[in-house]
Amino acid sequence: MRIFSAQAWWAAVGRLVPAAVAWSTMGLLWAAEPPLSSETEECVFCHEMVTPGLVADWRASRHSRVTPSAALGQAAAERRVSAEEVPAPMSDVVVGCYECHGQNADAHPDSFDHEGYRIHVIVTPKDCQTCHPVEVEQYSRSKHAHAWGNIRLNPLYHQMMRTVGNPEEPVEAAPHLAATPDTEVCYDCHGTKVEVQGMRTRELLDGSEIEVPKLLRWPNHGVGRVNPDGSLGACTACHPRHSFAIEIARKPRTCAQCHLAPDTPAWEVYRESKHGNIALSMGEEWNWGAVPWVPGRDFKAPTCATCHASALADTDGTVLVERTHDFGSRLWVRLFGLPYAHPQPKTGATDGIRNAEGQPLPTTFAGEPASEYLLTAEEQKIRRDEITKVCVLCHNTDYAQSFLERLEAEIERTNEMTRRATALLQRIWKAGGADPANPFDELAEMKWVENWLFYATSIRYARAMGGPDHAGFKNGWWALHRNLLELEKLARESEAQAPK
Amino acid sequence: MRIFSAQAWWAAVGRLVPAAVAWSTMGLLWAAEPPLSSETEECVFCHEMVTPGLVADWRASRHSRVTPSAALGQAAAERRVSAEEVPAPMSDVVVGCYECHGQNADAHPDSFDHEGYRIHVIVTPKDCQTCHPVEVEQYSRSKHAHAWGNIRLNPLYHQMMRTVGNPEEPVEAAPHLAATPDTEVCYDCHGTKVEVQGMRTRELLDGSEIEVPKLLRWPNHGVGRVNPDGSLGACTACHPRHSFAIEIARKPRTCAQCHLAPDTPAWEVYRESKHGNIALSMGEEWNWGAVPWVPGRDFKAPTCATCHASALADTDGTVLVERTHDFGSRLWVRLFGLPYAHPQPKTGATDGIRNAEGQPLPTTFAGEPASEYLLTAEEQKIRRDEITKVCVLCHNTDYAQSFLERLEAEIERTNEMTRRATALLQRIWKAGGADPANPFDELAEMKWVENWLFYATSIRYARAMGGPDHAGFKNGWWALHRNLLELEKLARESEAQAPK
Amino acid sequence: MRIFSAQAWWAAVGRLVPAAVAWSTMGLLWAAEPPLSSETEECVFCHEMVTPGLVADWRASRHSRVTPSAALGQAAAERRVSAEEVPAPMSDVVVGCYECHGQNADAHPDSFDHEGYRIHVIVTPKDCQTCHPVEVEQYSRSKHAHAWGNIRLNPLYHQMMRTVGNPEEPVEAAPHLAATPDTEVCYDCHGTKVEVQGMRTRELLDGSEIEVPKLLRWPNHGVGRVNPDGSLGACTACHPRHSFAIEIARKPRTCAQCHLAPDTPAWEVYRESKHGNIALSMGEEWNWGAVPWVPGRDFKAPTCATCHASALADTDGTVLVERTHDFGSRLWVRLFGLPYAHPQPKTGATDGIRNAEGQPLPTTFAGEPASEYLLTAEEQKIRRDEITKVCVLCHNTDYAQSFLERLEAEIERTNEMTRRATALLQRIWKAGGADPANPFDELAEMKWVENWLFYATSIRYARAMGGPDHAGFKNGWWALHRNLLELEKLARESEAQAPK
Repeated sequence: MRIFSAQAWWAAVGRLVPAAVAWSTMGLLWAAEPPLSSETEECVFCHEMVTPGLVADWRASRHSRVTPSAALGQAAAERRVSAEEVPAPMSDVVVGCYECHGQNADAHPDSFDHEGYRIHVIVTPKDCQTCHPVEVEQYSRSKHAHAWGNIRLNPLYHQMMRTVGNPEEPVEAAPHLAATPDTEVCYDCHGTKVEVQGMRTRELLDGSEIEVPKLLRWPNHGVGRVNPDGSLGACTACHPRHSFAIEIARKPRTCAQCHLAPDTPAWEVYRESKHGNIALSMGEEWNWGAVPWVPGRDFKAPTCATCHASALADTDGTVLVERTHDFGSRLWVRLFGLPYAHPQPKTGATDGIRNAEGQPLPTTFAGEPASEYLLTAEEQKIRRDEITKVCVLCHNTDYAQSFLERLEAEIERTNEMTRRATALLQRIWKAGGADPANPFDELAEMKWVENWLFYATSIRYARAMGGPDHAGFKNGWWALHRNLLELEKLARESEAQAPK
Repeated sequence: MRIFSAQAWWAAVGRLVPAAVAWSTMGLLWAAEPPLSSETEECVFCHEMVTPGLVADWRASRHSRVTPSAALGQAAAERRVSAEEVPAPMSDVVVGCYECHGQNADAHPDSFDHEGYRIHVIVTPKDCQTCHPVEVEQYSRSKHAHAWGNIRLNPLYHQMMRTVGNPEEPVEAAPHLAATPDTEVCYDCHGTKVEVQGMRTRELLDGSEIEVPKLLRWPNHGVGRVNPDGSLGACTACHPRHSFAIEIARKPRTCAQCHLAPDTPAWEVYRESKHGNIALSMGEEWNWGAVPWVPGRDFKAPTCATCHASALADTDGTVLVERTHDFGSRLWVRLFGLPYAHPQPKTGATDGIRNAEGQPLPTTFAGEPASEYLLTAEEQKIRRDEITKVCVLCHNTDYAQSFLERLEAEIERTNEMTRRATALLQRIWKAGGADPANPFDELAEMKWVENWLFYATSIRYARAMGGPDHAGFKNGWWALHRNLLELEKLARESEAQAPK
Repeated sequence: MRIFSAQAWWAAVGRLVPAAVAWSTMGLLWAAEPPLSSETEECVFCHEMVTPGLVADWRASRHSRVTPSAALGQAAAERRVSAEEVPAPMSDVVVGCYECHGQNADAHPDSFDHEGYRIHVIVTPKDCQTCHPVEVEQYSRSKHAHAWGNIRLNPLYHQMMRTVGNPEEPVEAAPHLAATPDTEVCYDCHGTKVEVQGMRTRELLDGSEIEVPKLLRWPNHGVGRVNPDGSLGACTACHPRHSFAIEIARKPRTCAQCHLAPDTPAWEVYRESKHGNIALSMGEEWNWGAVPWVPGRDFKAPTCATCHASALADTDGTVLVERTHDFGSRLWVRLFGLPYAHPQPKTGATDGIRNAEGQPLPTTFAGEPASEYLLTAEEQKIRRDEITKVCVLCHNTDYAQSFLERLEAEIERTNEMTRRATALLQRIWKAGGADPANPFDELAEMKWVENWLFYATSIRYARAMGGPDHAGFKNGWWALHRNLLELEKLARESEAQAPK
């Protein structure tokens, strides 16, 4: 039998003893016999057989154990519901199938009759806000909520998607390849516009049939999903069904579903950073569910959620940084080049931005920001201070400021590289080596995009989160420099072949 | 001392209380003083000193604690041995060194005399099948079992390996580089053909010497290893020594030893999918060893094993999906393009497939499937239904079907891209820009291979498992499109230089 | 409530029972009321408010609980301090803020007055060696300790950094881009030279101000950091603050902060190896803190630390492999091509190496090693035997030797590829397609570097640690071969354009 070290023993004791102290209050919160609504009881009765994994997952969730009124009885800082009150009868049953899928039935074009109940498949922020209105309101202001329109309604980004791949409308050169309404790849993260097209019949595996709404561009759990009820967003993007666990949302792999190299390498940079090393090495010993979340006690190094979303408190429970579900609200600068890094946009919906040349971009090709649509220096300082509050929970101010200043210097330097890449593309356009009519459909143009979208962005992310390889050999300075040389070769070839 | 949350307390209680209930039966199964054979006792006596890590690993394993007859006494669905009976005296001792390394001595060309015993180094499926015959039989039908021959005996794939790297036979241009029989890289995953070349003397670190069989192309644990006893496969590919733990095989990193980007990006797609996020975030709380495996209770999101191999049951223990060790048997379509995606082959051994043009490929260069060797539509439906059974454990049928239909649409679209890439290569061949005699040894040819082997495959995997970035910027539509433009540039250059 | 398997129960019992046995000795070591120095008490009093996360992290550390004299009372093999004695008064208080940040104040140019104490920000190996002198001495001999000078003082490597990216001095073509002293990317891993430039005033978030030393090129935790006190290294590179946990250093993600693809793909290869699979799948059940570390009992598969650093013992506590903090001291060959793989250098400081042609490289362009500076065959054998000692803890000698011999064959074959790539570059230089004056600033030159720095290295790492994909499709033979074809195309183009 294996012998365990002192640490293991302390860890075990540490887990049990304080929990025992907390026992009495827990008994009040997590009911031994949680009261289910009669509707949910009926749902569970069948679905325990037809989708047993789903029901078992929900049974292990907080939703299945706690009634809204019990949740409202918690101390303010520890509360996970932000409603002032939750109407009866919902307040006195746990949050079960019918409480979500039966709510606001008339507002849901995807409502349908199923075993005597009117239910809808797609639970939306409008449903969740019954208990979580503050989170829904904050979220509605974020770029996340507008992620569908931010690409679909921006004519330039839409052109890029149409050109490069998986077009949602027929590409001229290959009309037979018109994607079905369900196959747009960018929208897996950004969210689709889900629409109801009447009802359809589906054959079950046992040969029987079921009538269900025909949902276009479904399944989808993108952050900016346009729901049939008109609401924006999918809470399940970060709180996956049917546990909806805060623990998952706080772990970095949730963000890593989308924020990935080469265009937004947050996860790759994080996991190679010191923060990521500590979190991924020691996280199994941390308390991922505590509300509020206490740095140093509940966790030892930040994850994405820590810096960008969570409420953080000291060991006395005093909240030092407020929770937000507007995930950009602690950010002052946008590292993601379009094509240059620039101050964060004022609003989550960015499709209306126009630069000085009338293009739907936050900067011109020369790098001038579309300032009217972007944060002012004063607004930037407020946000920069907000995230610095998180840094100084564990680092001294000089350390934090020096770190951020180094990032700001790197932004300048990478923006200069975008200027060089753009100048090379303009030489190629001028020599006739590519046609600017569509700036995404030729090799030189794709290489230009890679310069700012992949490499400059990667270097900035690496600086912002301390994962140096993505500023070096991994899509960093090495790749950026080589890309410039490749663009230069294309420029020389174009000029050699240009009509005199 | 740190304070833990309610969840931590419930988790701790959840771990201990039910286990206590299960205590009495466990006492019967895991003997306090497990009976070792006298041979194994002798092995252990020395090897505890010479390879202490190996012995300690085995001591912590199920094999070291449970006798086959105790294992056979388990309820059918919970049994980990599939034999009807295990012959004495093996049935009444635990599975120790000698039970595996001393079994079937005469069948093993690598048997040798060692400290008074005739043992063999390489334990094979023929040994394992004494207790696990159903698994061995299923496995023998899989592409895994035939992974060596599927590349070594296919003249086209063999030519690719010879050309591109790490050739096992002299490359014409560099005969001095003939690989030793041990250095073929593809075979690390596919398995080598291990052969015995008499005995050799090895010097130990203390200066003494030992006589052991000289094994060519060893060590190797590839899935299709051709063993000295003629059997196919290495159970240790997924059940690594000397714990052979089912927990490891069920965790996704086991498959991630081989199923990796850019050619088979199963792991990369999985870890960025919602399933992967949940499993990698919360898996430390799951029960990875339960047989059968209950979705929602033992685990909350599937891993590779869940969908492709494991026996899955409801909480009453009723098995809903049967276990298989023929890992393709729940698959109807092969996403891996050769060069086009196509129906799964009928048999695990694919080296005999010939397309309509006589090439050893499951499709022609124009995309026509070699239907004679591939599943019929009826056979495809049976397999598609089988994997859908797994989906509907947690998702409704409409959700699952819409998901699969989207994959099927993407297969069509990516296959069309392979048609375009092939047409470009044929232009280059026609213009003399490359020589089709060896379709793998020129730049245009390698780019053509990347189009279908890397990018089209990647997009399909991303759709099949819901990790969208591998259909987008990570070896997805972006890379596929750029690759087509690069091929087109090579075609234009070739045509400009072609003799008029 | 979920039911847990037999394994879970045994695991739980295994964790608690032996720990209880160890309880009495632990009580003596980890004091219930750990004695803090009065200085540290004052530090904590304020910093619990201003940097609460930092203090809480330290409180959970071993440093906060154990006094040096208690640590010295441990049995020799279990001791974590290597000093023979620790002077009073430090020996009888736990290792708190002031014990590190107040030590050797006069030796630290960054010492400053802060709330009545003279403290320094940057704790260095010279401070750590009060308790850990053996580790500091070993480390000082390693390439790690000299990582700054090894690139900064080597004129060729320095030229590469200046050319490719993030230059620390003005690049001729873009003097306005001269990096600030804080933005050199290579130094994030290699370490910066931190210098003190007087004092500066920093505004805190509450509007108040603080006077602190102005530190150039800080923050930085690179392994070869040149500290203001002249010492080399940052222990925090691997033992991050403020837990300094051995558990973190032993987990592979610590090394993965720097040893990353494409140039040193140790992490990527490891995580795809069988060792990595086992460690990353089962590590949550292992004892990461035991000293010494017992393979098979405390852990089942090696991590980076196991093979390259840790003291390893059998279950009786007999140390079989000695601990080292000179991380190259178990390595006989350097896989990292410069440009060819070669015997490890004799000393950690490599900037003085000159090859037969006078270049600061360990091999010539033709592959001849600079033998005067490199290990002799005898010295190589000693080191090769040392790491083989680790292999044979779990594998038999024939297995280990065959594995290493296969690596050695692959080194030969990849070195031959570097010869081919170099010959192609020399054709390009000869034809005027690139200018050898700066061997890093043209496309052909960057591709040549990628051949040996990325692809040949990757193949060798894959062979050394058993993660085959990095020898195949992931920066392996496929990429190496394609790269040669691209270089050949550039050579042909250069020759076609060369003046006759």
